[in-house]
Amino acid sequence: MAGDNSASDTDTPEVGRPERRGRKRASTAAIIQSEFQSIQNHMSPLTPLSEDQIESVHEASLKIIEEYGIEVMSARARDVLRAAGASVDNDTDIVRMDREIVLNAVGNAPAQFTLTPTNPDHALIIGGNHLHFGMVSGAPNVHDIRGGRRTGNLADYKNFIKLGQFFNVIHFFGNQTLAPNDLPANTRHLDTTLINLTMSNKVFLSMSIGENRVRDAVQMTAMARGLTMEEMRASPSSTANININSPRKLDSEMSDAAMAMADMGQATVVTPFTLMGAMTPVTFAAALAQQNAEALFAIALVQLTRPGAPVIYGGFTSNVDMKSGAPAFGTPENSLANMAGGQLARRYNLPYRTSACSASNAVDAQGVWETQMALWGACTGHGNLIYHAAGWGEGGLVADYEKLVVDCEMLQAMANLLQPRSFDPADFAFDAHDEVAPGGHFFGAAHTMERYQSAFYSPFLSDWSNNENWQDAGAKTATMRAMDLWPKILEAYEQPKMDPARVEAIEAFVAKRKEEIGAGDP
Amino acid sequence: MAGDNSASDTDTPEVGRPERRGRKRASTAAIIQSEFQSIQNHMSPLTPLSEDQIESVHEASLKIIEEYGIEVMSARARDVLRAAGASVDNDTDIVRMDREIVLNAVGNAPAQFTLTPTNPDHALIIGGNHLHFGMVSGAPNVHDIRGGRRTGNLADYKNFIKLGQFFNVIHFFGNQTLAPNDLPANTRHLDTTLINLTMSNKVFLSMSIGENRVRDAVQMTAMARGLTMEEMRASPSSTANININSPRKLDSEMSDAAMAMADMGQATVVTPFTLMGAMTPVTFAAALAQQNAEALFAIALVQLTRPGAPVIYGGFTSNVDMKSGAPAFGTPENSLANMAGGQLARRYNLPYRTSACSASNAVDAQGVWETQMALWGACTGHGNLIYHAAGWGEGGLVADYEKLVVDCEMLQAMANLLQPRSFDPADFAFDAHDEVAPGGHFFGAAHTMERYQSAFYSPFLSDWSNNENWQDAGAKTATMRAMDLWPKILEAYEQPKMDPARVEAIEAFVAKRKEEIGAGDP
Repeated sequence: MAGDNSASDTDTPEVGRPERRGRKRASTAAIIQSEFQSIQNHMSPLTPLSEDQIESVHEASLKIIEEYGIEVMSARARDVLRAAGASVDNDTDIVRMDREIVLNAVGNAPAQFTLTPTNPDHALIIGGNHLHFGMVSGAPNVHDIRGGRRTGNLADYKNFIKLGQFFNVIHFFGNQTLAPNDLPANTRHLDTTLINLTMSNKVFLSMSIGENRVRDAVQMTAMARGLTMEEMRASPSSTANININSPRKLDSEMSDAAMAMADMGQATVVTPFTLMGAMTPVTFAAALAQQNAEALFAIALVQLTRPGAPVIYGGFTSNVDMKSGAPAFGTPENSLANMAGGQLARRYNLPYRTSACSASNAVDAQGVWETQMALWGACTGHGNLIYHAAGWGEGGLVADYEKLVVDCEMLQAMANLLQPRSFDPADFAFDAHDEVAPGGHFFGAAHTMERYQSAFYSPFLSDWSNNENWQDAGAKTATMRAMDLWPKILEAYEQPKMDPARVEAIEAFVAKRKEEIGAGDP
Repeated sequence: MAGDNSASDTDTPEVGRPERRGRKRASTAAIIQSEFQSIQNHMSPLTPLSEDQIESVHEASLKIIEEYGIEVMSARARDVLRAAGASVDNDTDIVRMDREIVLNAVGNAPAQFTLTPTNPDHALIIGGNHLHFGMVSGAPNVHDIRGGRRTGNLADYKNFIKLGQFFNVIHFFGNQTLAPNDLPANTRHLDTTLINLTMSNKVFLSMSIGENRVRDAVQMTAMARGLTMEEMRASPSSTANININSPRKLDSEMSDAAMAMADMGQATVVTPFTLMGAMTPVTFAAALAQQNAEALFAIALVQLTRPGAPVIYGGFTSNVDMKSGAPAFGTPENSLANMAGGQLARRYNLPYRTSACSASNAVDAQGVWETQMALWGACTGHGNLIYHAAGWGEGGLVADYEKLVVDCEMLQAMANLLQPRSFDPADFAFDAHDEVAPGGHFFGAAHTMERYQSAFYSPFLSDWSNNENWQDAGAKTATMRAMDLWPKILEAYEQPKMDPARVEAIEAFVAKRKEEIGAGDP
C-alpha cells in the first residue's frame, strides 16, 4: 500500500458526501493541466484497408452470420431474433440471420448521440470525429511502485475514481476501473456505482453482467441527475460494454444487459473479444470479418429490441503471442485493427469504440511504445470512445497508478496535437521578422512576449532540464516522477457537490437493493 | 565505458579490413530481426493543414524571400544568385529573390531519385511514399547505462556504425553518428568516412562543413564503389545535410558544401534549424513559413548551381521550452510540424526529410512517448528520410546505446505496421470456422498451424511473459533488456566484405589528404 495513501480500509465505504468542512484542503495546483474539453479530430482518418478490402470484410462477415451463425444463450434474445425472421437451431441455440435482417436493423441505429452525466459540462457527443479518452477498466489487480502489486480493492478503486475525476483529459470511466475484490461480488456494482456518482461527475459505464446490474446503475444515475426513468430514456447518461464471447457466442448475461439498456434508452457498446490466433483465426482479414460479424449481430439484437437505441460498434482486435498464447497489445496488428475498426464502423454509420492498451509488466519503454502504437491507431482511426487509455498495464491485469499519470500526460499531448492551429495574418509574425536580424533570436521580440506563455503545449510530466540539472535533481525517470505526483493529486482532489437529499436517496436505494439481493442473484 | 565493449583505444583506428580469420565469430543470432526492406507508406498522409493554409504558408514564405531576404555569407553563392537575377545588398550580404526565380529553380529538382551505397541491395529510393530510417547523428556525447555519459570518441563511433550496420531497419547513417572528439577536427571526416565505408555498406551522409570535406567523402565513396567521379555523378551515393542558420542566414561552409554536392551530382538535404520561439517567431504558422522560405531559398541555390541536382526538402521545426529556452522534441507542435513539412514538400514535388527526436535525459517513458509522437508525425507525414530515428537522446546531446536498441524495436514495429495485409479468400479462414465451435479457440486449427510462425510481427525486445515469470526473470524493464542486448549484437556484428585493393586505395587517399591538410584547413 502506498505511503500516506494507504488503502487498508475495507469497511463499508463512506462516500457520497461533500468533504467535511474544516478539513484541510490541499492545493488544487498539484499540476497545471489542460481544461476539460471536447476533442475533435479534424484530419481524415487513416485507412489501411482499401474500399474493396472493406467490402470483402463486410461480405465475409455476413457469410459468417448467415451460414455459421452465433450461439445465443439467452431465451429472450433468441425470441427477439426469431421474431425478426432469424433461424434458430433448437439443439445448439445457434442463430443465423439473413443479411437483410441484420443490415436493416443496424440501419436503425443513430450515427451520433449524447451521453449526459451528473455534470452536464462533462457531456460527451458520441459519433462523428469526436474523440474521448477513458480510464482503465476491469483490472483484477492494482499496482504502484511503493505499494507493489496487490489484488483490486475498494480503497484503490476510490483512488482511481478520484484520479480520473481530477484529470481533465479523462472523459469517462470504464465499466469497473478496477475490481474491488474485498466487496461481495453480487452487490459490488451498487457500491461502485455509488462511488462513481458521488466522487465523480463524468460519464461511466454500467457493469454489464445481467439485466439487474444495469437497471440498478441506470436507476441510481437517474436519481443522481434528478430525472425520472422516462426522462433518462430521452437523455441517456450511461452505456455498458457487451463483450461477445468470441468466437461466435453471446452469453445471456451480456445480451440481457444489452437488451435492458436498450429498453431504458441507454447506450450499449458491443465489443467482440477477438484476439487473433486464439479467439479468431490467425489472419488479419479473418479477425476483422469475425469482429464485424459478431458486432453487427449484437447491434442488430439491440436494434430489434428497441429500434433507434444508441449503440456503439466496438473493436478489440489484437494478436496473441503465438509462443505462449499471451495476449499482446500495442502491436502493429493491434494498431492497424484500431484503424480498420473505424473504417468498418463508418461503413455502417455507427459510433466507434476502440482502445489504447499495452502488455508490459512495467511502466517502461515497452509500456509506452505499446500504448502509443495503440493510441495512434485509435486516434487516427477516429475512435469515438478510446477505452483503457489511462492506467492499463499487463494486458489489463493491473490498474497502475504511475501508468495512469504517464498516460494522462500522453493523452493531453495527443489532445493538443488534434487542436487546429491558427493561420491568421498576425500568426505569420512579420512584425517579429522586422525586429530580428538574420542569425538572431526571437526570445525578446514583442510578438513572442505577447504569446509565449500559452504558445506551446505545457506538459506536466516532461523534464526538459539539461543533463547536469536533471542529475542534480536526482536523475528521476518520468515513471519515478509520476510516482511522486499521484499522491499529491489525490490530496488536491476535490469531490464534486451533489444535493445531499439525492445522495441520501441513492444510499437508501443501495441499502434496499443489498437487502433484496442478500447472498442471492443481483 | 561499457564492460567488454570498452572503448578506451584512441589510437589511429584499425578499420577497413575484413575480420581476422581464426578470431572467434559470435553467433549472428543475437536477435531475430526483420529483413532489410524498402518501406512504403500506402496510406494517405495526415494533413493537419488545409490547402488554403498551405497556400498561406507558401505566400508568407515567398514574402520573406522577396522582402526580408536571406543573409548569404559565401561570395560564390551570392554570385550564383546574382547571376540568376537576385538582388544582393552589398552592405549586409542579404539576398532577396523574386518568386519566379525561386519557383522556377525549385521546379528543376527531381521528385525522386536513388542513392546507391557500396552494397546496391541497400540502395534507397528517395521520394514518393518511400520511407527510410536513419541513425542518430551529430551527437557530441555518448551514453550507456553501465559506462555512463562521456564525450564522443572513436571507439564508440565504431560501435554505433556496427550497430547501424547490424540492424536491418536502419536504412542510412546521418552525417556523423556521434562526434569522435579524440580525433583532430580538421581530418576527422576522413577517419569517419573510412569507417562508414568499410564497417558498413549502407548510405551515409557526408559531413557538410565546407567544400573539401564533401569532396573527400564523395571521392572515397567513388573509390569504394569502383566508380569514376563521372560515374558517381550519374549514380549518386551520398547526401549532405545543409542547415540554415535560422533565422535567415546561410553560412559559407554550408552553402559551399551544398554547391559542391550539386557539382558532383550528389544529393543535398536542406534543413532550416527552426526551433519555434528561439530561431523563429513563437507561432506555428510563422515557423512553417520561415522553414519554407529558408528551405526554398537554399534549394533554389542548389538548382541554380546545377539544374536537376537531387535535393531534399528538410523540416526540423519544433518548439523550445519557453521557461528555459531548452529545445523540446516529440511535442505536439513537433509532431504536427513533421506532418505539415510533408504537405509543403509535396507542394513543390520534392522529397522530404524529417526526424524522430526526443529530449528526455533517460531511456524512459518520456524518451519513448516523445520519440513516438515525432515518429508518427514523420511517418504519417510521409517523410522519405527520417533522421535521428535510433539512438538520439537529450535533444541530440547524446548518442545512446540503449535508446538505439529500443528505437530499432519501435522502428521495426512501425515498418511492419506499414506493410499491406492480405485479403485473399484463404485469409478469411472459413475452413477454420468449420473446425472451431462457438466459444472455442483457434490455437489448434489447421489454418492456424500452417501460418502461426509468421502470422504476426515478432518483436525482439518486448517481454510478454506473465507477471510472475517476469518477476522471476529479474523484473527487467525494456531499457534494462536493451542494455543486455547491445553488447551481444556488437559481438554478432559481421564486417561487410570489400576488395582489399579498394580498401588500400582509400587508406592511401586518407593518408595523402591528412598530409595535405596537416594542421590547416580541411
